Amino acid sequence: VVTRDACIARDAADELAALRNSFTLPPNMIYLLGNSLGPLPRSAPAHFQRVVQDEWGAHLIGGWNLSWYDEPTRLGERIATLIGAGPGEVVVADSTSINLMKVVYAAIEQQRSDGRILVGYEAGLFPTDIYVASSVARSVGGSAVALDIVDGELPDLPDGLGAMVLSHVDYRSGRLLGMRALTKQLHDRGVLAIWDLSHSVGALPVQLDDCEADYAVGCTYKYLNAGPGAPAFVFVRDRLLASTRVLPEGWFAHREPFAMSPSFAASDDIRRLLVGTPSVVACAGLHASLDIFDSTDIAKLRAKSLALTDLFTEVVTATSSDVDVVTPMDPDVRGSHITLRHESAYPIVRALIDRGVVCDFRAPDGMRFGFAPLYLRHVDAYDAAVAVVDVIRSETWRDPRYAMRETVT
Amino acid sequence: VVTRDACIARDAADELAALRNSFTLPPNMIYLLGNSLGPLPRSAPAHFQRVVQDEWGAHLIGGWNLSWYDEPTRLGERIATLIGAGPGEVVVADSTSINLMKVVYAAIEQQRSDGRILVGYEAGLFPTDIYVASSVARSVGGSAVALDIVDGELPDLPDGLGAMVLSHVDYRSGRLLGMRALTKQLHDRGVLAIWDLSHSVGALPVQLDDCEADYAVGCTYKYLNAGPGAPAFVFVRDRLLASTRVLPEGWFAHREPFAMSPSFAASDDIRRLLVGTPSVVACAGLHASLDIFDSTDIAKLRAKSLALTDLFTEVVTATSSDVDVVTPMDPDVRGSHITLRHESAYPIVRALIDRGVVCDFRAPDGMRFGFAPLYLRHVDAYDAAVAVVDVIRSETWRDPRYAMRETVT
Repeated sequence: VVTRDACIARDAADELAALRNSFTLPPNMIYLLGNSLGPLPRSAPAHFQRVVQDEWGAHLIGGWNLSWYDEPTRLGERIATLIGAGPGEVVVADSTSINLMKVVYAAIEQQRSDGRILVGYEAGLFPTDIYVASSVARSVGGSAVALDIVDGELPDLPDGLGAMVLSHVDYRSGRLLGMRALTKQLHDRGVLAIWDLSHSVGALPVQLDDCEADYAVGCTYKYLNAGPGAPAFVFVRDRLLASTRVLPEGWFAHREPFAMSPSFAASDDIRRLLVGTPSVVACAGLHASLDIFDSTDIAKLRAKSLALTDLFTEVVTATSSDVDVVTPMDPDVRGSHITLRHESAYPIVRALIDRGVVCDFRAPDGMRFGFAPLYLRHVDAYDAAVAVVDVIRSETWRDPRYAMRETVT
Repeated sequence: VVTRDACIARDAADELAALRNSFTLPPNMIYLLGNSLGPLPRSAPAHFQRVVQDEWGAHLIGGWNLSWYDEPTRLGERIATLIGAGPGEVVVADSTSINLMKVVYAAIEQQRSDGRILVGYEAGLFPTDIYVASSVARSVGGSAVALDIVDGELPDLPDGLGAMVLSHVDYRSGRLLGMRALTKQLHDRGVLAIWDLSHSVGALPVQLDDCEADYAVGCTYKYLNAGPGAPAFVFVRDRLLASTRVLPEGWFAHREPFAMSPSFAASDDIRRLLVGTPSVVACAGLHASLDIFDSTDIAKLRAKSLALTDLFTEVVTATSSDVDVVTPMDPDVRGSHITLRHESAYPIVRALIDRGVVCDFRAPDGMRFGFAPLYLRHVDAYDAAVAVVDVIRSETWRDPRYAMRETVT
């Protein structure tokens, strides 16, 4: 097994190592939840101050004529470079759930004339995606159905299926799906593919256009480090845009928002995915984080992410036989977090957090360790693995104070 | 007519005068668009810094266990005190448009069993409200219809009407509707009343519970000064909450959001109006502004707002016969902004902005002047009126540079 000194040497040779300095990271903490909430970019406070004081404070309503109006599309163009999308295919707005509503509705409307009003979703999809897909489908007279994906393969698809919602990386297991093959299989059956990129964007390459994806949504506060509750993004394949109808229709999607016409006329461009006034201040953190991404390369980040998850898993499995690795280790189907299974996962996670190894628990027996390649070191992966093994072996997790369920996330 | 010295004397005697110091207001500007975007509270940058640096930066994911999770309900309780709502009736989330979607959908579902799937809206409603109500009604098999309100009176209501969307204060004319009487008339016909408070909250008393309002939405970045695109709020009358179904269903509305159950079970409380992850950072400005409201009294603010709109209108009409006052001057039906009509409204507005009197244009011939009582002085109302009259009389607005349509708001 690799030694700690070898990890330090790898960090010394790592051309991405300096990126860590772009983030505020508390001392004595190994932060392995960048897959849930990314840390604060060092330049983010200045970005917030610019919007709040220099723009809102000094220009008031005039801010809309400065830069605010174009924030959703400007940020969409920036994110497009990370997800293999072209100009005019991505916009930043609302939450991931609200954006998923828009594209599920749009997909059903695209397929309605063919009688395809059934929406499929992966059985293990992030719950809010299931709730959104189901409630939207039901509201418009359709329905939603869970479809198991086993070993990355689609099951037999039911008749009337119009769209399917898939997560690029599974939030629990860390399994990465083959976007190209699955999208093609769906298309061969006339089904639109809606991808949720929340657990992949910023950690690994995404090629929406190359994979012929139809719609996609994603979160900016995980690997994109934009801050708690920052606005999400939505992607519409260019060829589908003109026939995409959004629910609800709102003024920022209007061809002429400020003409205040009583009748709605959708914008010809990606703005038709907007609804209400953009959350301007909340966008500042995303600019700060995307500046960091601009200074590096997603392929290099992916290579480091794989190295970190390899390292962590190797050290854990080489020194403990008490945990199962849930995440598939084949790099083709591995995301950027590792999930371990242990029957006492909850108190083990609590004990690890107490030691400064910040990870989380997913019922019933999962422990998640996210490896964001922008700011984690090889030595962090090593130390985290040693801590996992030590907490399990020493049974410090049996301390009664770790048994209480008190955290909300 | 009142003199400028008399206005200065009124300001000196104004017990609300010191509140102006709670805001950052650029020098040499009379800001009359608080009805569109409120100015920056002086304490807001510190609130943003607290959330960004002290919470996100220092606690990362742990912020959710500190205070973030309860932000939507905590802020809802604070806003409730301004709109005559009770505990558990208000929550802060998403945009006004998205919140309106939720309650229009909920109202249709409430009434569907009685075959009432028609949604009425005021003919002059803010356009995005029309788009939202129409698109949501259509998507679920209903429809929407414009209903003229003349002299504050409802027209004959069509059969099958289940809900009606009304704006408390009209965004163009500044007309205030009688919430109590209109809600009662709607209820007498079995129709649910949905109120948009965007142009009244923070400027005048709102009594949702007393008026028996069913649903309401409102904006926080106008008279509530929470910053561009800050999250909006939504009100559900307590007796309707248990039967309120929201579209879309999302994880923050779940009874146990972090149980990650594949099946949705709505929260028993006002959280069922949530959808995705709350926009935590964007809430900071709202806290700052609500602290200022806590230090004063909405009845006193209303009295000052009426005094300011009286003063402005008196000076304009006493010294110029070239403009029509669109806003009704009866205090019972007057909001907190004044709309004047002039065939050259657009270049006049541009010329006024050039003189530091910040107002806006609404097609085809309206000029809007918002009088936020928290930070405007009597002398501001006086000087603005003199500027209006002077720009019209001197014809400075004929300068060709004022003819070009270049502003977006």
